[in-house]
Amino acid sequence: MNHHENFTLIGPFTQILTMTNLPEAGAITDDELDVLEDGGIVVCDGVIKMVGKYNVLLKVAQEEHHNFEKITEPMVLLPGLVDAHTHICFAGSRANDYAMRVAGKSYLEIARNGGGILDSVRKTREATIVELVGLLKKRCDRHLAEGVTTCEVKSGYGLTVDDELKMLEAIKLVNKHHEIDLVPTCLAAHMRPPEYSDSNVYLQHVLEELLPQVKEQELANRVDIFIEDTAFTERESLEYLLAAKELGFDITVHADQFSTDGSKVAAEVGAVSADHLEASGEAEIALLKEAGVVATVLPGASLGLGMHYAPARKMLDGGLCVAIATDWNPGSAPMGDLLLQAALIGASEKLTIPETIAAITTRAAKALNLKDRGCLAKGQVADFIAFPTSNYKEILYFQGKLKPTIVWKRGEKVQVTIP
Amino acid sequence: MNHHENFTLIGPFTQILTMTNLPEAGAITDDELDVLEDGGIVVCDGVIKMVGKYNVLLKVAQEEHHNFEKITEPMVLLPGLVDAHTHICFAGSRANDYAMRVAGKSYLEIARNGGGILDSVRKTREATIVELVGLLKKRCDRHLAEGVTTCEVKSGYGLTVDDELKMLEAIKLVNKHHEIDLVPTCLAAHMRPPEYSDSNVYLQHVLEELLPQVKEQELANRVDIFIEDTAFTERESLEYLLAAKELGFDITVHADQFSTDGSKVAAEVGAVSADHLEASGEAEIALLKEAGVVATVLPGASLGLGMHYAPARKMLDGGLCVAIATDWNPGSAPMGDLLLQAALIGASEKLTIPETIAAITTRAAKALNLKDRGCLAKGQVADFIAFPTSNYKEILYFQGKLKPTIVWKRGEKVQVTIP
Ligand SMILES: [Zn+2]
Ligand SMILES: [Zn+2]
Repeated sequence: MNHHENFTLIGPFTQILTMTNLPEAGAITDDELDVLEDGGIVVCDGVIKMVGKYNVLLKVAQEEHHNFEKITEPMVLLPGLVDAHTHICFAGSRANDYAMRVAGKSYLEIARNGGGILDSVRKTREATIVELVGLLKKRCDRHLAEGVTTCEVKSGYGLTVDDELKMLEAIKLVNKHHEIDLVPTCLAAHMRPPEYSDSNVYLQHVLEELLPQVKEQELANRVDIFIEDTAFTERESLEYLLAAKELGFDITVHADQFSTDGSKVAAEVGAVSADHLEASGEAEIALLKEAGVVATVLPGASLGLGMHYAPARKMLDGGLCVAIATDWNPGSAPMGDLLLQAALIGASEKLTIPETIAAITTRAAKALNLKDRGCLAKGQVADFIAFPTSNYKEILYFQGKLKPTIVWKRGEKVQVTIP
Repeated sequence: MNHHENFTLIGPFTQILTMTNLPEAGAITDDELDVLEDGGIVVCDGVIKMVGKYNVLLKVAQEEHHNFEKITEPMVLLPGLVDAHTHICFAGSRANDYAMRVAGKSYLEIARNGGGILDSVRKTREATIVELVGLLKKRCDRHLAEGVTTCEVKSGYGLTVDDELKMLEAIKLVNKHHEIDLVPTCLAAHMRPPEYSDSNVYLQHVLEELLPQVKEQELANRVDIFIEDTAFTERESLEYLLAAKELGFDITVHADQFSTDGSKVAAEVGAVSADHLEASGEAEIALLKEAGVVATVLPGASLGLGMHYAPARKMLDGGLCVAIATDWNPGSAPMGDLLLQAALIGASEKLTIPETIAAITTRAAKALNLKDRGCLAKGQVADFIAFPTSNYKEILYFQGKLKPTIVWKRGEKVQVTIP
């Protein structure tokens, strides 16, 4: 026995997409994708130790008495997927909003009929933390089973200090007990709550009363805001975000879904990512590029609202680092299937296969400022997923209907049963 | 004991959408949808005998010694789904085409690189009938598990008399041994095969050598053709379809995917349905309406090719009977998830919930000229599916991620396990 006794060699895999050696931003051609054939992966204590040709690794493994996890079917291995933008900590369904929307009712009519974000706020405020934990856990079960090993989750249906803290605590609890890794974000600036008539007063309240507690209790190190005519203005957002940054938070923004002030703010405050961007044009793309902001596009919202996608092709050609996330939420994006949505925007926007897969792995990790995941390389967290095919192109070709059948989280196989 | 001994009462269901009493064509408002609350359904020998309030049916059932199949969870019952347009009898995958398409390669470049329909033709010709049966069966397993109890399947990857017969025989075999009901269609006119330089000569060959055998061996009673610049012209199609009609076939056409000659032909020959219709405008809608042709829209092809949907909203407002089908095929539409695709086109085209559900049940049955299914009423085939929710609006709201958990085919529960 030697110090390598906890090493496990997993494989062989017909193909491994390590998602390494790719440009950090901009377009990626098919030729730039490394496809490791007949590969294996060595893990120890939840971390990747080696990735390489199976036969080579096998020799070492036999000499050094590693454990073996033998793969007997043709399979393609990918890094675990990263969903960089969700709102899956909520109570209640908004199926009635949906029915009104497809029947042609406007946003305002739906709100007047008791729908909209405030409906989720009401139901989430009413829910106990135990109920929220149960609901969030169920959604994490599905996400993990479908290959998402890291998932961002926003607060934002509380909109009071206590209710925002309740949401963030629920996220923290699930993160602690669930195999999935959750990345919490404070979105107290989702909208101005009905109890306030002045947005600045509300944001000031959040800055003084909520964010210091979030920081102190380590409930999140990211702050988000919804910049839109119906939410917060450019000026309100800028002041708020600069103050949040001062408190030590990473910044992300909901930007350019309908208007285009958000990307300006994102660039000015040096946000890690700007998300949505359906309305972004050349000017906005240039601003984000200049500031090094990751562009996270959200096909789920486009599919839910029946509107066009963010211009992901133009963004890549303009040199942006593009991530794709689900925006899974009870209003505009209740589907929450990352692989399927990535395949759909990829087909529509003509993203190459490496561009789409990078957008839900390595580039999505970058959108969350996580350096320890998103690709398969020595030192990275041992999160990876295997698809029952011998041709990686089939993963997107089947538009989300080919799911991973084995998911490893920190080197351990997890039960893949969709609830 | 009396003559009712084989009757089974199934229920109670929180809601039953019978999909009866709806307009046969045109728009449907939410108010026009009958929602039967706390309902039950009585079946005997695979046929529906009664649909009504559970308590009322229960009294009769107890008096007349029916069997009982008790539903103990909140569930919503719908008619089994009908997929009115597929090409799921094929061999091989076209993932390489997909990769080229998203990388920006044109249709012609893909064909020159050995892709396109001819690639599926080559692989399907090479496959034995046993292989085809196995592949088709697997796709039927998934479809049935996802609630599709009746499915149209086209030939069209053979393009020789023998290979077209092989495909239709494979469909017949699966239909015989699988719980799903398959509706075969002869699409020998999918494209001009490479062995022919003259389309008219090929179509004449099909009319003389293939269709009489199809008729005689009862392999299909429907004939389809692809009307497009890249396939068959208006004139070629018209002559071919009139001759096929003369032989006794129902007619359906692939129409208006890119150009608009197809709907003209469909109207002129009195086709049962015209399918695709992405390029249809007001004139085409008026033609189809006048001729009583069902408009079958195919969101899967739009999602696969990344193009806009057929104008389903305009079609409904123009008075058409609109069905939604998957077009499940190895080239443009490899996803094959009817419920999900219906939800997506519904969200985008702003179809009301009853319009979307009718399009995959009663109106889809009309597209196949089937009068014994598509709604839940006395005398109809006992095909129905139950969703684990108490609000029917959630079925489309979740955009295909809420699947039926119980599927009955001819009154019998089938195993719902997705392969
Ligand atoms: Zn969002
Ligand atoms: Zn078709």
